[in-house]
Amino acid sequence: MAPIGAALWRSLRAHQVYGANTNVGKTVVSTLLCKALAERGSVGFLKPVSTGSLEEADDRHVERFAAGPNVLTKCLYQFDEPVSPHIAARSKLKTIPADTHILSSIHRTLSSWSTNGVKNALVETAGGVHSPGPNANSQADLYRPLRLPVVLVADSRLGGISSSISAYESLLMRGYDIHSVLLFEDEYYQNHEYLQSYFAKKAIPLLALPKPPPRPEGKVAADAEARDLEAMKKYYDSVAAQADIGSLLDGMEKKSHDRIAELESMATRAHSAIWYPFTQHQGMKPEDITVIESAYGDYFQTLDRDTKQDAAPVLKPTFDGSASWWTQGLGHGNPELALTAAHAAGKYGHVMFAGAVHEPALNLAELLLKSLGNERLSKVFYTDNGSTGMEVAVKMALRAACVRYGWQLSQSEVKILGLKGSYHGDTIGVMDCSEPSTFNQKVEWYRGRGHWFDFPTVGMKNGSWRIDVPDELSQELGGGEEFGSLDEIFDLEKRSKSAAGQRYSAYIKDTLEELVYKKGVKFGALIMEPVLLGAGGMLFADPLFQFSLANIVRSNPNLFGSSPSTPTSESKTNWSGLPIVFDEVFTGLYRLGRRTSASFLGIDADISVHAKLLTGGLIPLAVTLASTDIFDSFASSEKSDALLHGHSYTAHAVGCQVAVNSVQEMMNMEQRGDWDAFKTSWSERVLSANPHGAVWSQWSAGLVQDLSHAESVERVFAVGSVFSVTLRDQAGQGGYTSTAAKGLQQRLTLGEPTDPAPFNVHSRVLGNVLYLMASMTSKPEELSRVEGLLRDALL
Amino acid sequence: MAPIGAALWRSLRAHQVYGANTNVGKTVVSTLLCKALAERGSVGFLKPVSTGSLEEADDRHVERFAAGPNVLTKCLYQFDEPVSPHIAARSKLKTIPADTHILSSIHRTLSSWSTNGVKNALVETAGGVHSPGPNANSQADLYRPLRLPVVLVADSRLGGISSSISAYESLLMRGYDIHSVLLFEDEYYQNHEYLQSYFAKKAIPLLALPKPPPRPEGKVAADAEARDLEAMKKYYDSVAAQADIGSLLDGMEKKSHDRIAELESMATRAHSAIWYPFTQHQGMKPEDITVIESAYGDYFQTLDRDTKQDAAPVLKPTFDGSASWWTQGLGHGNPELALTAAHAAGKYGHVMFAGAVHEPALNLAELLLKSLGNERLSKVFYTDNGSTGMEVAVKMALRAACVRYGWQLSQSEVKILGLKGSYHGDTIGVMDCSEPSTFNQKVEWYRGRGHWFDFPTVGMKNGSWRIDVPDELSQELGGGEEFGSLDEIFDLEKRSKSAAGQRYSAYIKDTLEELVYKKGVKFGALIMEPVLLGAGGMLFADPLFQFSLANIVRSNPNLFGSSPSTPTSESKTNWSGLPIVFDEVFTGLYRLGRRTSASFLGIDADISVHAKLLTGGLIPLAVTLASTDIFDSFASSEKSDALLHGHSYTAHAVGCQVAVNSVQEMMNMEQRGDWDAFKTSWSERVLSANPHGAVWSQWSAGLVQDLSHAESVERVFAVGSVFSVTLRDQAGQGGYTSTAAKGLQQRLTLGEPTDPAPFNVHSRVLGNVLYLMASMTSKPEELSRVEGLLRDALL
Repeated sequence: MAPIGAALWRSLRAHQVYGANTNVGKTVVSTLLCKALAERGSVGFLKPVSTGSLEEADDRHVERFAAGPNVLTKCLYQFDEPVSPHIAARSKLKTIPADTHILSSIHRTLSSWSTNGVKNALVETAGGVHSPGPNANSQADLYRPLRLPVVLVADSRLGGISSSISAYESLLMRGYDIHSVLLFEDEYYQNHEYLQSYFAKKAIPLLALPKPPPRPEGKVAADAEARDLEAMKKYYDSVAAQADIGSLLDGMEKKSHDRIAELESMATRAHSAIWYPFTQHQGMKPEDITVIESAYGDYFQTLDRDTKQDAAPVLKPTFDGSASWWTQGLGHGNPELALTAAHAAGKYGHVMFAGAVHEPALNLAELLLKSLGNERLSKVFYTDNGSTGMEVAVKMALRAACVRYGWQLSQSEVKILGLKGSYHGDTIGVMDCSEPSTFNQKVEWYRGRGHWFDFPTVGMKNGSWRIDVPDELSQELGGGEEFGSLDEIFDLEKRSKSAAGQRYSAYIKDTLEELVYKKGVKFGALIMEPVLLGAGGMLFADPLFQFSLANIVRSNPNLFGSSPSTPTSESKTNWSGLPIVFDEVFTGLYRLGRRTSASFLGIDADISVHAKLLTGGLIPLAVTLASTDIFDSFASSEKSDALLHGHSYTAHAVGCQVAVNSVQEMMNMEQRGDWDAFKTSWSERVLSANPHGAVWSQWSAGLVQDLSHAESVERVFAVGSVFSVTLRDQAGQGGYTSTAAKGLQQRLTLGEPTDPAPFNVHSRVLGNVLYLMASMTSKPEELSRVEGLLRDALL
Repeated sequence: MAPIGAALWRSLRAHQVYGANTNVGKTVVSTLLCKALAERGSVGFLKPVSTGSLEEADDRHVERFAAGPNVLTKCLYQFDEPVSPHIAARSKLKTIPADTHILSSIHRTLSSWSTNGVKNALVETAGGVHSPGPNANSQADLYRPLRLPVVLVADSRLGGISSSISAYESLLMRGYDIHSVLLFEDEYYQNHEYLQSYFAKKAIPLLALPKPPPRPEGKVAADAEARDLEAMKKYYDSVAAQADIGSLLDGMEKKSHDRIAELESMATRAHSAIWYPFTQHQGMKPEDITVIESAYGDYFQTLDRDTKQDAAPVLKPTFDGSASWWTQGLGHGNPELALTAAHAAGKYGHVMFAGAVHEPALNLAELLLKSLGNERLSKVFYTDNGSTGMEVAVKMALRAACVRYGWQLSQSEVKILGLKGSYHGDTIGVMDCSEPSTFNQKVEWYRGRGHWFDFPTVGMKNGSWRIDVPDELSQELGGGEEFGSLDEIFDLEKRSKSAAGQRYSAYIKDTLEELVYKKGVKFGALIMEPVLLGAGGMLFADPLFQFSLANIVRSNPNLFGSSPSTPTSESKTNWSGLPIVFDEVFTGLYRLGRRTSASFLGIDADISVHAKLLTGGLIPLAVTLASTDIFDSFASSEKSDALLHGHSYTAHAVGCQVAVNSVQEMMNMEQRGDWDAFKTSWSERVLSANPHGAVWSQWSAGLVQDLSHAESVERVFAVGSVFSVTLRDQAGQGGYTSTAAKGLQQRLTLGEPTDPAPFNVHSRVLGNVLYLMASMTSKPEELSRVEGLLRDALL
């Protein structure tokens, strides 16, 4: 879908007229509003899709009764039959206009009205809120990207209280703001009275209107029609004379004005009240803060500070290029997830989990154990985010090691084995699992407890996939290699037998023996982020190094300690050597295109941590999965030997149910082949022997190839939804404190303002690395626009 | 409200018939289903509230057309007028039956049917899903506690697609399960075709039925009525002959059966797949796991394992006596919170927060800064739970102290000053802020970093409020005191000038001087949970001790370090001595009856942490509020000096918006005087000089008084929503590992099974302490039932 800005202008106040049902009087209400608005300046009435006979078309009705020099009317698609647009379209049109075309047409129309001095506009829907549009999608969904404020015409008939409230709820859960409610008075049913007090509690004004005269049904004689015309005219005149339409309009005007004033004040207020994560506030100005008005699909709607003209759009679509800090999977404003969250909230709220069980938590646990393809894992522990999930993993692993090896706490401290540049979260316990770095060196209580291997990395340079070995290790590991494809790099069976593979293993074993035997280090866990070390700087680890490290640890059980309970090599699910913890918080659940990132290594962890994409990108939740062997380390007759961890909202029902649906939906997408177009592009280029298992990305192989030749580019890679480019740093300094990527980031922030569909890109940098991340629902045509911007900037 | 069990029986399958709108044919569908069900055994048709003329009453219609020995019909409330029940009731009845009466009547009727061998029952609603019941509440809300599975009759008319989907969404967000959809075929509008494919995606079967013959309107002649009767009979016979009603019923039967089978399997499956928080799994059996089917208000609906008879209710209302681990505030299944969550999900999903701002996060920050009554606080930092919120607080405080006092990291480690028995979360960093205890002593990486004062505690013993001083401190602090009321204990101005107050201050100052001057300890923060130390064992601290400690720290700025930037005593918002951190995660936001627990002490913290009740009890979210002075400690030209902390879902829009609405609603409740009944009961007893500021509880003063005399009781207290009773431990051992409270807990779990409205109580114990916690919406009559159980058990 071409990016579409939410419809908001300073000079033009546009509203969308939704009906609680069909035949509730939307057009009569629109006509009344048009007449009243015309007294305040030029007004536009837009009917995107109209059904019903031409004579009765809603724009014609408005034209007839609200006619005047100040009133413009327009209909985009007209169907004669009084049926749902999806049926009308089906029978009348060879090519049904795509929803994106309808949206662009509306935006274009309103935009031109804004430019031409129109002050107010009404966009009238057809039927009820969920009546299908021409492509059979609910109108409430179809028009959502515009997020026009809503004038809801409620139903004054018997049953209308119910349908009006339900319609309101359907709009609300799609992120609409309802600015006012109108309906006809009915002295018998008195819906207006009930609804008035109902909407007053929501601070939404409701205006009850006199009932219009009955309209003749079917074909009528000319004189009857004339009488009807006269009666309607009288009706409109008498209602228009009423004062309260004026105050309703005043209120709507104020809301529109306040909405923009709010947006314009937000950055300054945020600058004053918010302490931002990972942000140096010194020198930060309000203008540095992006104001996000709303979001839909892959785009934020952000306040456009560059255009101050009254007639220009206030909002601009901004591609969410960090997938909102790596969380986004199923798109912003996803109505299915909103409904799922609401259902769990309505069925449970949050319920106690210690000593209890509810369906969402149980179903999620079982789904993950069944689907992640790791036979070792049999238990699920819930926490709230990746950092707490990793704290639990560390507690689990250290206990398991200490119990097996008979270590007492009074003995010297147990340490972590890991990789340099790893990052496992912001709480102090898991900070200690990473080597000293910019992220932690100034945290007063930090002290790294472990040994971290430096390792070779993967990237494309000048059109070739390369493995680069850090200079200090070139003697032990060799000088790096070139490969014809990513698939070859991931052919670990073959590579492990190569000379490089043997060098890796020998180096790892020698180092460990030195640490354990000579320096007396006690290790309690091997912790790794498979394939990609995210926060450490998007480091694409040579998978062979991770593979070798895990295998050396497992095949040398006596290296780390000795115990009568050390399992024999036959054991398939018991841990050996050290408990292996995979931190898949960032890399798991399709972030790299596969269900798990462990599958790239072919290694089953003993403990595996997942978060971020777990809820499709909606709310925090984390799981720490463990083997029975690890679990059993905590079994004892003492309560105090248990894993004494558990946040209050542990396994909250809303998060678990959203996660069940999200994980299931991503698995369905995989099964349905939703990503086949991406896969094909990569497997064609890399000529993979095994296209099903080929390594692929949502970012095009061509982009990676082309950018790798760019002068300012050090190297590039892409896997799954992640793209990353490392820029040459003039100062020769890489790492988190480098500013080399800032220029590219600014270029993306500038975007394509002169494009017919202008948009820009939000991105994050880690020192001299700029990365972009798609969601699982991103479409190739969307991503190629972003790729175009990258090419413009770098080539 | 008397506790009502969700309506579920093994022998009786009951469904609720909801209509997408009025006049969609609910009664025709019910009649068809009754006729078909009657062939499978006895069937009951229940119309709780009927409107429309007596002749046309829905139960009469069913009686007439589905008559037979197997069909029972019943109407609870009959109104003649074809208007909404709330209007009919208003005009017809002197006393409108309370919603709880209606619910009990339905439950009683279904229960008796179940006992009498009825196999199926339909409970038909009036009008649409949100049509108001007799008390003007939406029926979807009114009937929610029964949570009957729904048969939705969709609307086959023009506009019916929209109203059917909206009705479905309104039911879903209230936690209903929709088991099937029926509607009439309309060849012109073809709603059934669209809805069939719509509901198929939700795995909900839809059955399209032939249209019934048109029914005569108004008064008709006898012969016309006879013809109509004949036509309807024919219609029912012809439709009943169709096979697909059978398979629809089979499907519904299967769903009902599966629902119970699922409930019965859950404990075993959970026992296998779940690693529970704070739980020693050894010896734990599936039967120890409470199966929570759903929850509403103050009650879980739990699987009743004690009654295995087919005719007995499967579910039992269980009072959520731990407020679901201290989180619950606005009731389970709160539709307002569900709708709020859905709106934010639909408007944003989760959006990036670093460098950006959105309305919910900004509004929540401003609301808290404005409302918490602490002028020092000016910045809000977001995290996901209390533990991470406290990790941030520790990072903030330590940095501020180190910067001001010029301490380098290479110097000896900076420590925390706190109270014994404090608890700040489960992540390792904040575990280190507590003294060694059961909770942390076996965590391999734990090492307490601080000094923790023992302190006097408050409780009622034998009818008197007492302050008890630990034996070891009786020489320094005196031997404890008795008070006439809680208010006197909280009269800190007076008490600080007393001999006890002076003893407290002298002791604290002497101890600190010893620690700092003699032992060279460097302190970086004072951290306290004001008034009540929750996880440490519900320790009610003498507020005077906390008050004195804070004041000594602040009034002795040179005790902890020296710096040219030490503020003069005039400064009102700068910290002095040490940054004071209040951990209000448990105690804040009305848990103790007041907006903040700091207000009991009259001390403004420099850093304040809130979570749990922040979202009203729905989803995880935490805030760490800080002063500008603390904030400024991180300002530098170096990015790496910033507070490098931030979880991916930081300031997630759903949580922030739910929090805005929850905090606002709790403030509204306070303002409206919703808790005045509780307050009055306490201030009458304690004869407070200042009833507005009086200390009160939702638990009755009488209960506390009476239980304090019980033989098995050591002491009792209550404040705000928290009640706690400390039991005498025969072994003389208190603390977390004691089992003295287990017996009382089991008694509460047993509940009152012979009560006409049977219920039981879920509670948590901390060693020999059993506590109960209400939500902010708990009603006095509810709590008095629970109090009755406590009295039965202990008196």
